[in-house]
Amino acid sequence: MAKMPKPPAIITLTTDFGEGSRYVAAMKGVILTINPHARLVDLSHSIPPQDIRAGAIALAETVPYFPADTIHVAVVDPGVGSRRRIVYARIGAQQFIAPDNGLLGCLASRERPSKIISIEEPRFWLTTVSSTFHGRDIMAPVAARLSLGLAPDELGRPLDQLTVLPATEVQQVANHIDGEVIEVDSFGNLITNITRDMLHGVPTDESVTISCDEHQTQGMFNTYGDQPAMTLIALVGSGDRLELAIVDESASAMLGVKAGTPVRVSW
Amino acid sequence: MAKMPKPPAIITLTTDFGEGSRYVAAMKGVILTINPHARLVDLSHSIPPQDIRAGAIALAETVPYFPADTIHVAVVDPGVGSRRRIVYARIGAQQFIAPDNGLLGCLASRERPSKIISIEEPRFWLTTVSSTFHGRDIMAPVAARLSLGLAPDELGRPLDQLTVLPATEVQQVANHIDGEVIEVDSFGNLITNITRDMLHGVPTDESVTISCDEHQTQGMFNTYGDQPAMTLIALVGSGDRLELAIVDESASAMLGVKAGTPVRVSW
Amino acid sequence: MAKMPKPPAIITLTTDFGEGSRYVAAMKGVILTINPHARLVDLSHSIPPQDIRAGAIALAETVPYFPADTIHVAVVDPGVGSRRRIVYARIGAQQFIAPDNGLLGCLASRERPSKIISIEEPRFWLTTVSSTFHGRDIMAPVAARLSLGLAPDELGRPLDQLTVLPATEVQQVANHIDGEVIEVDSFGNLITNITRDMLHGVPTDESVTISCDEHQTQGMFNTYGDQPAMTLIALVGSGDRLELAIVDESASAMLGVKAGTPVRVSW
Repeated sequence: MAKMPKPPAIITLTTDFGEGSRYVAAMKGVILTINPHARLVDLSHSIPPQDIRAGAIALAETVPYFPADTIHVAVVDPGVGSRRRIVYARIGAQQFIAPDNGLLGCLASRERPSKIISIEEPRFWLTTVSSTFHGRDIMAPVAARLSLGLAPDELGRPLDQLTVLPATEVQQVANHIDGEVIEVDSFGNLITNITRDMLHGVPTDESVTISCDEHQTQGMFNTYGDQPAMTLIALVGSGDRLELAIVDESASAMLGVKAGTPVRVSW
Repeated sequence: MAKMPKPPAIITLTTDFGEGSRYVAAMKGVILTINPHARLVDLSHSIPPQDIRAGAIALAETVPYFPADTIHVAVVDPGVGSRRRIVYARIGAQQFIAPDNGLLGCLASRERPSKIISIEEPRFWLTTVSSTFHGRDIMAPVAARLSLGLAPDELGRPLDQLTVLPATEVQQVANHIDGEVIEVDSFGNLITNITRDMLHGVPTDESVTISCDEHQTQGMFNTYGDQPAMTLIALVGSGDRLELAIVDESASAMLGVKAGTPVRVSW
Repeated sequence: MAKMPKPPAIITLTTDFGEGSRYVAAMKGVILTINPHARLVDLSHSIPPQDIRAGAIALAETVPYFPADTIHVAVVDPGVGSRRRIVYARIGAQQFIAPDNGLLGCLASRERPSKIISIEEPRFWLTTVSSTFHGRDIMAPVAARLSLGLAPDELGRPLDQLTVLPATEVQQVANHIDGEVIEVDSFGNLITNITRDMLHGVPTDESVTISCDEHQTQGMFNTYGDQPAMTLIALVGSGDRLELAIVDESASAMLGVKAGTPVRVSW
């Protein structure tokens, strides 16, 4: 195969603007005006409005699949225009630009950032900065300039740590584990904060009961097709987390369960 | 014009994950990690969950507009992790990676695949394969490797045929044709399985009646603007299929009609 | 930094097809078949069906953020197949392909187009042109050919002016300004046709009242975080327009207000 040119930088966008929002397109326009070679990838624009925790989970579950040095811009920013900081962070092999409001918290609690910079140098921003759309006016141009080789240290002064949201807690005792639903995926599956590691040594046969609200099921399965349609099942999903699903249906819709609902595994 | 570099390979994605799903972004991350030059195009992520037939129709109607050798990855996969196969297929000038559950059935019944391979060689997959997300763990890395020049024959062993869904049948008799609605498009137009070819010789003036459920209309028109707003009309649409539309409104919403509803053309 | 290759042409797409519509994918396939190097950016596919004014506003608010010479293809086209024209226009540094139905009207009333061409030369279109999907059959191939260097003058004959929608009017008198909501954004914020310029000299303290339907609020703020959650506030938003917002909630949903509702600023 012929030698390929150097791959252009990849910039992902995660927002709560909604799919099809023209605000996302404005951010892309700003980036492409500065670096027309940047590769843009939508991570998601369906984070529920102002739901920082949901954005933090979506980032943490998805960015490990991206190439090293990808720049992830995340805008779930209810405090826009107030005194919350905007930060650059390097966590593992990935780079981030986001408000410092907890949005990078799940990632930072998993692995200590190797660099955090408070973004304070206006010469890298749009000339006019609005009070209500820093995603377009500050974060997009900074990401584009980083993708062209700007050193993160130029952006502002270093910080010691990122804001982290209060963790959702998992209680592990002798014969049960208490956690909660942290996310409803696009199929209506209920993803919990109970990870594969925490289930080490827990039986997977009928002797284990998984309950969520007043609903319960016995045993843990490998995949959705292991049980007939309409059955409530528990399994460890593709993100190595315990999830509850109704085969071929939306568990969230059928059970009326949302993020925050307690889940217990007992045996 | 200056000589352009060789165009990078195009990979399209079709899923039932929903627009804005982070699962789609994970697939893109996997592909770009292996081939950062791949061009990614979303065909649709709005296939109704687990609706293999709707996915098969969306693919069949859209892929003819793509350049030769495009790689189309399609994931509507209720049987993920069970014994259904994952296949590579070449159909006409296009390439496909999909579960062998009928998703390529509309395409394969239109033109015999020139190559079908059962994807069985784990060395081209992610190192760890989950039970519930083969789109990310098997199909995305295989597509990326094909886009870099991997020969399809390396992926596994050849198969003779693809799984095909039972066809929706069109009955043509002396003075009527019976078909059904196979898709509701994004405007609420009702697309049928009655094609332009089948209507050859059928009158288009007032002497023809098109009925769907208890609703009916006379004559066939060229375009929506041929009748006033709110009028129910029949026409042969942009995919060479008979469709029913309400001018400037959603026929599906106003008539309460969905895919599967019988349609009769009589004259 | 090493010399970068010439950036490929950028083509944006704006439609009322809905996110995830396979019709959008067909347009992308047509463009990439003609120019596999074109960079495709979705501006929005969430324009309400047939809502030309909403499309015109989305374009006018977003295209200024794109690089010079970007080609914007816009398809909100209730008159497809009828005698409405399809046009090429250059407005400022940007290029457009759209039906001449008012969709470029907001842009054209802000700055006189330097070139308008009626698109009439079928040799640049798909060989077969449907009556109902000129976005795919005419506009997409024309955009792709322009991106390869085709001169706009080749497309057809010059026109003097574009169709413009009747403007939404703002009345400015001694101590009040009357305008209206022209757009509800993805957060449910109510964007008005009253611009920052029109508010020059208007007080921003408690002595100013902004009313919309039976709802009203005093004073104008800088950003959403300036007031507690659930408060109705007025501010000049990121597009330099007066907007009404409910902090951390959807003003449109909570107040039941849509585009077209009158807004008064009085002091």
